[in-house]
Amino acid sequence: MSAAPQAVEAGLALESAVRGGLEDYARVQARAARRYGPDFVALWEIAAQTMTGGKLVRPLLMAEAVGGFARARSGAAVAPATVIDTAVAVELLHYAFVLHDDVIDGDLMRRGRPNLIGTVAAQHPDRHAPAAMHWATTAGILMGDLALSGVYQTFARLDVTTQQKERLFALLDHAITETVAGEFADVGLADGCLAPELGTILAMSANKTATYSFAWPLRIAAVLAGQGREVEEALASAGRHLGLAFQLQDDVLSTFGDPARHGKDPDSDLREGKQTALIAFARITPAWTDIEPLLGCDTLTDAHANALRAHLEACGARRFVEGLVDESMGAFRDACADPSSPIPPQVRAVLADAADRLHERQS
Amino acid sequence: MSAAPQAVEAGLALESAVRGGLEDYARVQARAARRYGPDFVALWEIAAQTMTGGKLVRPLLMAEAVGGFARARSGAAVAPATVIDTAVAVELLHYAFVLHDDVIDGDLMRRGRPNLIGTVAAQHPDRHAPAAMHWATTAGILMGDLALSGVYQTFARLDVTTQQKERLFALLDHAITETVAGEFADVGLADGCLAPELGTILAMSANKTATYSFAWPLRIAAVLAGQGREVEEALASAGRHLGLAFQLQDDVLSTFGDPARHGKDPDSDLREGKQTALIAFARITPAWTDIEPLLGCDTLTDAHANALRAHLEACGARRFVEGLVDESMGAFRDACADPSSPIPPQVRAVLADAADRLHERQS
Repeated sequence: MSAAPQAVEAGLALESAVRGGLEDYARVQARAARRYGPDFVALWEIAAQTMTGGKLVRPLLMAEAVGGFARARSGAAVAPATVIDTAVAVELLHYAFVLHDDVIDGDLMRRGRPNLIGTVAAQHPDRHAPAAMHWATTAGILMGDLALSGVYQTFARLDVTTQQKERLFALLDHAITETVAGEFADVGLADGCLAPELGTILAMSANKTATYSFAWPLRIAAVLAGQGREVEEALASAGRHLGLAFQLQDDVLSTFGDPARHGKDPDSDLREGKQTALIAFARITPAWTDIEPLLGCDTLTDAHANALRAHLEACGARRFVEGLVDESMGAFRDACADPSSPIPPQVRAVLADAADRLHERQS
Repeated sequence: MSAAPQAVEAGLALESAVRGGLEDYARVQARAARRYGPDFVALWEIAAQTMTGGKLVRPLLMAEAVGGFARARSGAAVAPATVIDTAVAVELLHYAFVLHDDVIDGDLMRRGRPNLIGTVAAQHPDRHAPAAMHWATTAGILMGDLALSGVYQTFARLDVTTQQKERLFALLDHAITETVAGEFADVGLADGCLAPELGTILAMSANKTATYSFAWPLRIAAVLAGQGREVEEALASAGRHLGLAFQLQDDVLSTFGDPARHGKDPDSDLREGKQTALIAFARITPAWTDIEPLLGCDTLTDAHANALRAHLEACGARRFVEGLVDESMGAFRDACADPSSPIPPQVRAVLADAADRLHERQS
């Protein structure tokens, strides 16, 4: 499905407004950082670069949904400044999670470029010393804390009613708790602390990604547009289906996608022995005896990684997870198409566009 | 100075009320964690134990100052529930910083007992595997995030005026920024990224500890008691002097104090090569040639640690830092005794008591 030229133009304008909001946010923080010395300013400058380099999927989904409510003339008008400030907060939460996730995973790259940790490490006088990684990891933890705090500070300053603000705070609490629980389970699975059952893995995927990346931005849009709880819940449910499809597709792309497009190490999930739905399926097939010895092997060679990919393909794991993606996408489309859904058609159109973009992505 | 029996009794009642508030907070979180499985519940149970084991210096200072304003019949009365909820938030921020600090320093103990990280690691099926430490460190990062978020959530639900809430949010922003900047400098000094000048070390100490541990709780008390900005600033200034004295005294106790009382490894600052005021002074004395080769040595023996202590003593570093402690304490007492100070006498009495307790401590 290709969007009309005006829609593309409006989308680009929105994207550049959100990016501008993030740049402004980081600039104000970098200026305030001056009283703590040049290293703290430099840290904020690195944050500004790495924070604005993404696709802004989450804040754009929120902002586009607010636009959908406006076109439906449903609820209250939302001031553009409020939308942009909220979008900044939505991306800041993502940035905080990404930073702490990168610390936990020991990742120095994101989207094919050094992340904040990799950039700080490279600036150390002796970049290969253990102290360089320690300093860089510390920067990742602390900047994550600042970004998390920044979400709350930005929400607290929004020009919305007291009732809306209370709801936004409650939703933020829920989003953070679900994401942390999902991340904790993700690491617990990888570290052998939780039994890698498919149900556990699917719940983890939904908690870790679907809530804060899809359900949460959509709920926020409903709150800003003055919608009732029924609309908010319908959006959250649709968002969770879409988010689970997104996360499962991400697992497939990480292992089978084109590294030139997704910018990640294509073997890292296999080398880490990450417990994805692919692996949970493979475990109950005869191919497991060939997969198990290689999976999670520190010294995994390219040939071994390719062999693992071939096994996962042959045993039907890839097809199975692609089936789950289709199933979640189907549930999402059903939720949108339900004639009794309280979501206005203009907002459903936003959801459908987002789903098309996600489904067609290669990275 | 020994407090009157009633005062001791009132202090103990307050301490037990604050501890009860923290236990309630953790219990509610543990209950909500059930939907994410037993491991997430267990994490909150470990948090409950490790969160309530401290001396609660920060929340008690805040609560006692609020009591001082009440006795002075200055400003508005504060509901006891508001004081306890605020106290919980104050301790939660400390807990969040302690957790992330322990991750950064790789510490598994606090106050002579396993901290959250040490406890989680010990529960891993194979506690000596690298996965056990990874899982435990992840728990430390994520629980720190939940505690940081909990501070904001608790503040957001306080039954105070909109103006007070806005001020509390602004103060929290400031406290988090200063502490993060101080921690970043602390690690930067240890990792050789910042020149270890005495001025940098003193600014780092004030930012890292004095603001959130002393100035911030006192400012909060002023806000809750409906005081104007003048009283708040006077308290913050006194709190910063007291906090710097506390941090410098901590550096002296960590190296020269009785480990049976402070519960820490007495050689860890020396083994890590921590850049304290002791070391900054020693660096500009002839003793440096004897100190430098041993400081920050991974394999530091007891005999070497004792030799380092003897050098730091003989070169005058200990005496110098104890002099700085006295100087900060003097500035604090002068601020309290200043007849033109806007702080009511009943609140100054609270400050004086806190200073006496801190000055006499051995741990």
